[in-house]
Amino acid sequence: MTDLPNTPRLTPTRYRELASHDREKFQRTLASHVVAHVGFVRDGEPMVLPTGYGFDDDYLYIHGSTGSAFYRDMGDGRPLCISITSLDGFVYARSTYDSAVQYRSIVIFGAAEKLEGDDKVRAFDIMAEHLMPGRVAEVRPSTPKELAATMALRVSLAEASLKILDGGVEETPDDGEDHSVWAGTLPLRLIAGNPDTALLTPPWTLLPDSVRLQQQRFSNR
Amino acid sequence: MTDLPNTPRLTPTRYRELASHDREKFQRTLASHVVAHVGFVRDGEPMVLPTGYGFDDDYLYIHGSTGSAFYRDMGDGRPLCISITSLDGFVYARSTYDSAVQYRSIVIFGAAEKLEGDDKVRAFDIMAEHLMPGRVAEVRPSTPKELAATMALRVSLAEASLKILDGGVEETPDDGEDHSVWAGTLPLRLIAGNPDTALLTPPWTLLPDSVRLQQQRFSNR
Repeated sequence: MTDLPNTPRLTPTRYRELASHDREKFQRTLASHVVAHVGFVRDGEPMVLPTGYGFDDDYLYIHGSTGSAFYRDMGDGRPLCISITSLDGFVYARSTYDSAVQYRSIVIFGAAEKLEGDDKVRAFDIMAEHLMPGRVAEVRPSTPKELAATMALRVSLAEASLKILDGGVEETPDDGEDHSVWAGTLPLRLIAGNPDTALLTPPWTLLPDSVRLQQQRFSNR
Repeated sequence: MTDLPNTPRLTPTRYRELASHDREKFQRTLASHVVAHVGFVRDGEPMVLPTGYGFDDDYLYIHGSTGSAFYRDMGDGRPLCISITSLDGFVYARSTYDSAVQYRSIVIFGAAEKLEGDDKVRAFDIMAEHLMPGRVAEVRPSTPKELAATMALRVSLAEASLKILDGGVEETPDDGEDHSVWAGTLPLRLIAGNPDTALLTPPWTLLPDSVRLQQQRFSNR
């Protein structure tokens, strides 16, 4: 895989040292997130919509209802800015100024292409596999009517960036701070709770692999 | 507190029944999140930046370096669209089409005002109190130089919306689905792990109240 590019608008103006150009780390970061925020311009004004996504080596995939004016706008080829962010923890420094949140932040610039036919079906499978790994094999296929009601879009991952703040407190014995004040980090992690079974599921039904996979994905490891 | 307004651009085009106009629920949702995605138009193109925030009854507060061209743009009065989203779980329906993620999604339309003097100091305290409750009292005050290096912006919460998907699988005995397939929900929650103490903290130092508050905030309750 190629490195992430270094175009001017992908270069952070601040904290450049946090930028990563490691494509593998980028793909791993995409794998660990679920929600993207898609920004676009609508009648001259900004609009940001949260949405689930899927991805492969080259594209990010999103989907929405064909009845949604927002998704129709998003899919008409206009410029998009997509931000995918996780909150990974807090850095408790010895001043509020030096305190920070730990995060992994992806930004993708591009435009969406609307997918049809086999490409569309493949895009839905990619998204389903990312959002609920293993689930496609457990449920019935989508009907032609369901497929027709949903739009599948893809955006190239060519112009993308990754910024990671995962460090702790920066401190030296002579930094002028009062070291008797506790400093350190507090990590955060998205954790799955207990599944809640729908009423019409027969009581002897085993929890499917897809839910157990998801619990494993969102666990303390 | 007044209800959330119902302007055309705040009215969802899809799933209107998920919209909430309860201002108290809105404030509680703001309280439980940490990161906002701020969208704006820059040279005709969309830009989305993730950032921590604070809030009171009337305003959302964000801050950034005075050296950041992005924050200078964001703060010059141009229209902003701010999206705050949490991923709260997965709905495993008996088709991928009916499956969904559970979320709480806030959207705020407005423009930022740059704060100075006492308003600016108060804004920093509000943000610090939201991001790291109790921490301001434990550390030294910010220096004039630190204050000067940071911009504080506020955006009115007058034009804001809240959309919540917290329901489970919709099912009826005659919905035509194969009910032998397990269906249900899997909740997700952001949980704090164990704090990691910075090396220069004296070993006998107790974990401060602020970190214990944060652990409580991000716990299984």
